Parts: sequence; C-alpha cells; structure tokens
Amino acid sequence: MTGAGSAMPRVFFDDDERHALTGEQALVLAELAASVRELIASVVLTDAETAEVAAVAREVDALTRRLAVARRTAPPVTEVDASGVIRQPGSPVTGELNPIAPPIVISLSPDGAARAEFTLSAVYEGPPGFVHGGVSAMILDHLSGSAAAANGTPGMTAGLDLRYRRPTPHGVPLSAEARTVRVDGRKTFVESRIIGPDGEVTTEATGVFVMPVRVDGS
Amino acid sequence: MTGAGSAMPRVFFDDDERHALTGEQALVLAELAASVRELIASVVLTDAETAEVAAVAREVDALTRRLAVARRTAPPVTEVDASGVIRQPGSPVTGELNPIAPPIVISLSPDGAARAEFTLSAVYEGPPGFVHGGVSAMILDHLSGSAAAANGTPGMTAGLDLRYRRPTPHGVPLSAEARTVRVDGRKTFVESRIIGPDGEVTTEATGVFVMPVRVDGS
Repeated sequence: MTGAGSAMPRVFFDDDERHALTGEQALVLAELAASVRELIASVVLTDAETAEVAAVAREVDALTRRLAVARRTAPPVTEVDASGVIRQPGSPVTGELNPIAPPIVISLSPDGAARAEFTLSAVYEGPPGFVHGGVSAMILDHLSGSAAAANGTPGMTAGLDLRYRRPTPHGVPLSAEARTVRVDGRKTFVESRIIGPDGEVTTEATGVFVMPVRVDGS
Repeated sequence: MTGAGSAMPRVFFDDDERHALTGEQALVLAELAASVRELIASVVLTDAETAEVAAVAREVDALTRRLAVARRTAPPVTEVDASGVIRQPGSPVTGELNPIAPPIVISLSPDGAARAEFTLSAVYEGPPGFVHGGVSAMILDHLSGSAAAANGTPGMTAGLDLRYRRPTPHGVPLSAEARTVRVDGRKTFVESRIIGPDGEVTTEATGVFVMPVRVDGS
C-alpha cells in the first residue's frame, strides 16, 4: 500500500495530530536527510580503523540526542492535495526527509503514467552487484500507487504480482514506469516495470489498488 | 531476489575483491549501524529548531568524511556457509551493518520454515500509522528466499505474488514466516505471511525461486 496512492480518511490525521512543515523546515530537514543518506553509504562501505568507527558511533549518538530534544509522534505530512493525494515527505520510498529513501522522484505525465529515473547505491544491494529484489518491489508498489492516483482512482494496494526477468544492477541509471490499464468498480489495475541501463525490462509487476471506503462519511 | 536465498557463482566475489570482516570489525560496525538507525528515526521525527537541524547536518557531513578515508568498493561479506548461503551483513533487510535494515533476524527451524519477529518504526511508514506495503514485500521476499535456501534449494526470486489482506501497523510486534511448499526442477515454491499483533495475517505471498546455473563450471 502506498502513501502516494492512498486516499486515507482524514480521521487518521486528526487522531495523530500531525503537523505540517513550513517551507524552511522542509528545506533544512531535506538537507539533513541528504547528509544522513551519505553517512549511511559510508557506514556500509567504510574500511576505517575500528577505533575510529567506534568514535564516530559515539558522535552519531550525540547528534541523535540533539535532534531528539523536540520530537514529533509521527512523520510530518505537508498537505493533502486537491485530488486527495497525501504528500508524505517521510516516505521510505519517495520521502526527501527520510534518509532510507533513495529518494525516488515520481513525475506524472498527462497520459496518466507515472515515471521515475534513479540510481540505487550499494546500500540497496541484494546479490553482489545487484539491487535487492525487495527494493525493486517497493519501488514498483509505490510507483503503481502513484499511477492509480494520477488516474483519479487512488487506492491501497490489494495485490502486487512481481516477475523478475533479469537482475537489476545498482550504481547505474535506471528508470521505471507505471500505467493504469483498467478500472473495475473500486479496483484499479496498474502495470509497471523497471528498465535497466541497456533498455531491457528487469522487473515487472501487475498491481491491484482498492479505493478505501471513507470512514468520515464523506 | 534475496541475498540469503542466492547461491551466486563464486566468480562475483573474486571480481569484486570483497573482503571478509574480522569479528572485531563486524562488532564495531554493527554498533555504528545501530547508532545510525537511531539517528535516522530522529531525523524523520525531529521537531528541533531549523538552525539546530542545519548544524547537525554539517556535523553529519564531517562524520561521513571520517568514515570515507578508507572505503571498500562493495559492501562486506562475511562468508559463504556450507549450504552455499552467502552471509550479507550489508543487506538492506537483514544486515546488522546496514542502517536502513530494521534489521530482520531470521531463524530457520528444523521443519524447514523461516521465521522472524520484529517491530518496524515510523521510518517504514506508508499510510499514516501503517507499514509501507513495499516494506512488507521486501521482508517477505527475503524471508521466502531464506526458506528456499533452508530447504536446500536456494535460488533467486523469479516471481513474488503478494496479497494485502489488511494494513500492517508499525510500532508494534509483528511476526512473519515462510515455508517451502514444492520443488519442481530448478524452481522452488514458497508460501509466506506477515502476522499482526492480533494474530491475523496482514500480508501473504507466494514466491518462486530459481536456482542459478553456476558459471564457474561447478
């Protein structure tokens, strides 16, 4: 189920007392998340001396305490746009404020397709040299949810059928696309794929998204 | 495709010149990754002043530089065990050295099942209050690959068919299990599920894993 594709009842937000961010907050937090993304890659690849690694860990702990002096109870949201799509800057896939997100930047085209171009680092490695298949699944789930939303029929993932055609390399430019192919009542069917640097499809999926029944009666 | 379930040809390792870690290195790096995991959660949830956030970002950059003085070209591996399963401490799902991994600890039982118990933080949030469906997919892919390997028939993911039954909450104890149900030639079929705190299945999957043909002639 994707954030981008979820027209969730507003009651979730009221209960969680989620705060919107100011533009300045969003900008500075995005810069922090980008810095932590680089730190994560360095942690996975470092060959520094163990004493230095231990010293860095203690400094990381100190930075964590500085950020924790004021803590939200839930990741920030920025807005629910006119089409009912929630902007989630804390998303683990697309969130510019979430250090674990690559982050994938999704563009919606006038023909209703969702597309993204990205490069995944060794942080997302499964088999040596290749992207973890679960990471590919996560990206296609989110992109497909965005395509369903772009189609005007946002929903939560009910099913995702993935076919892995060939390994997806990391460290090279990749692209992905998703397109709504059919709507049947509350169900939206979306086809998606990841394309490698040679233009060949590495992973493809069929997703089914179901529009939730709104609990606030609207 | 999962690391745990991939009996990759040894040639990958020779080409990449991957280094094994000493026990001390693995321990200290795991402590660093655990610290960075806490930092990530603080980044996603912090409500600190913007000037403080910007100052912390600069200090994170300095720590990244300290770790980057000696850098591997690929995430470390520890060993290939007797059954041909690669231990990948840098895995984005199970890797104790990878800050983006929860990390999921998988136990293999004598009956050939793979099981895990874990709690996912708000860092993995999709819809407000719930785990991103793509994160659930990633966990089931990896767990299923482990079950195929435990069955003595390790392979790379060829297909993963996910059914989302109900939202998976974050911040509460979850469990997951996977079991090989059939082997047909080079194909291994695995059923898996994530179970919520109330004992109900939230997400289930059927995976097909294919044993790669070894390119080193063995």
